Amino acid sequence: MMRILVTGGSGFIGRHCLAAMGDADIHATSRTGAPSRADGGASTVTWHAVDLLDPAATAALIERIRPTHLLHAAWEATPVLYAQSPENQRWLESGLALADCFGRMGGQRFLGLGTSAEYGPSDGDCHEDETPVLPASVYGHAKAAMWQALQAAARIHGFSASWGRVFLPYGPGDPLQRLIPSLLAAFRKGEPIALSDGLQVRDFIFAPDVGRQLARLLLSERDGAYNIGSGVGVSIREVVETLAHLNRAQDLLQFGQLPRRPGEAQRIVASTGKFRELVDATPCTTLDAGLRMTLRSD
Amino acid sequence: MMRILVTGGSGFIGRHCLAAMGDADIHATSRTGAPSRADGGASTVTWHAVDLLDPAATAALIERIRPTHLLHAAWEATPVLYAQSPENQRWLESGLALADCFGRMGGQRFLGLGTSAEYGPSDGDCHEDETPVLPASVYGHAKAAMWQALQAAARIHGFSASWGRVFLPYGPGDPLQRLIPSLLAAFRKGEPIALSDGLQVRDFIFAPDVGRQLARLLLSERDGAYNIGSGVGVSIREVVETLAHLNRAQDLLQFGQLPRRPGEAQRIVASTGKFRELVDATPCTTLDAGLRMTLRSD
Repeated sequence: MMRILVTGGSGFIGRHCLAAMGDADIHATSRTGAPSRADGGASTVTWHAVDLLDPAATAALIERIRPTHLLHAAWEATPVLYAQSPENQRWLESGLALADCFGRMGGQRFLGLGTSAEYGPSDGDCHEDETPVLPASVYGHAKAAMWQALQAAARIHGFSASWGRVFLPYGPGDPLQRLIPSLLAAFRKGEPIALSDGLQVRDFIFAPDVGRQLARLLLSERDGAYNIGSGVGVSIREVVETLAHLNRAQDLLQFGQLPRRPGEAQRIVASTGKFRELVDATPCTTLDAGLRMTLRSD
Repeated sequence: MMRILVTGGSGFIGRHCLAAMGDADIHATSRTGAPSRADGGASTVTWHAVDLLDPAATAALIERIRPTHLLHAAWEATPVLYAQSPENQRWLESGLALADCFGRMGGQRFLGLGTSAEYGPSDGDCHEDETPVLPASVYGHAKAAMWQALQAAARIHGFSASWGRVFLPYGPGDPLQRLIPSLLAAFRKGEPIALSDGLQVRDFIFAPDVGRQLARLLLSERDGAYNIGSGVGVSIREVVETLAHLNRAQDLLQFGQLPRRPGEAQRIVASTGKFRELVDATPCTTLDAGLRMTLRSD
């Protein structure tokens, strides 16, 4: 009998994973144990309040629930701060303990949440097993360490392990300080908006698509790392202009007023071939449709 | 004032690192605190008995010694068993705690001991920042996880971090169950020796060269991963035949009698350009000279 546990279930990604789960025995954790506002599939979810940074509490939870499938989405992801936060070192430690405990309790399938920030600079698309993993942040290093440690635990305990490297998610529930919510807030103020040149190319993926892809990957038998991206590279400028157009706020945009962040990559786009070939995925929501749905939910 | 700490100082690699250290304030740990028999530079080494798997003992040691430079060579490396041993998951955990403690205590430079087993299959030489890290063992995954976690700790605490991926070391002090000591024992018995075809190509490096390269890397200011190899690929067959020739035991060799181990890579050879360019290394001992010196020490 399959029993799914989603950690970080009230987070931006976690809630969309829960919404994408079909009929199953689903458990979720959050710090408070309360479902998030935007959680669409809460009717079948049993919530647990737990501090996953407390190893004893985590072990007690796993022993009580005994999940067969675990989607580990809980990390420190506070916008801007998350990238170099020492907290993610603690999330790495707690992740190791979680994977070990999951294995000892007979868990079968562990899907961890990775990030495109694990990849080093790449001229082309990022390939899971070819593009070097050369992170430039504490966050990227902690995630890459977790994936390696997870594979060690999987070999030791004999469970199946997979890793979803999420590219640039946007959509309902996006934390306020991130690109799109902060642009929408600026549009409302009606004041000029200073931006960088915006020519950096990113792989934006609608968060409900992220949830669907991760749910699909969790239920597959596939080991290994998989990109969770749209596979479509667009410039940040194009996203900002599309959003401004939908809000009739084009005249507020002032590109080139800000410098780029130091060390910012020019292009981060997913190769999606591995995921699509093995998991038989449905197409992603287009950027235009995704942005319109994001606006309606705002 | 530089103070160097070498963990695993009585191990096969650790002892050669100690022997290669120049005049400095050098401390070393082992489980028993006793220097190894083959330790050449023990006169200037202060030994400490510590169980590094005990976080409190490790923290107390670091607080007492306050090393500026740390060469972390302690892992589970019992021949054959080490590759899939769950112990290396515990060494990973203790390594994270060690790196964190080292950073909090003001440490400046941390060099960790990696392995060629971190690399995935490669037709050519293994390049530090290009060849995908795709281990096939608990050992390889734990090492790769440690390197990523070490870089996270280095960013958090602001110390310099480097990683030496050691290829196939041989020489004085080689544990008895490994290739060359076990061949020498078999030659002494004078009985036929069943071998695989031996056509696997490996990068054999004389252990004193490993010690010298790691000591050099520790004292350099270089961040990043570096291969510790000779850069020369030779077949295992060639090594066995050379050793048999030196022992007049060629007639004992029976190649092709054993199957290869499942999943064994055909070729694992270091690209040494990055190390040689940045660290200005001296040439490695030739295989013939290294084997002769190994025999003399046996």
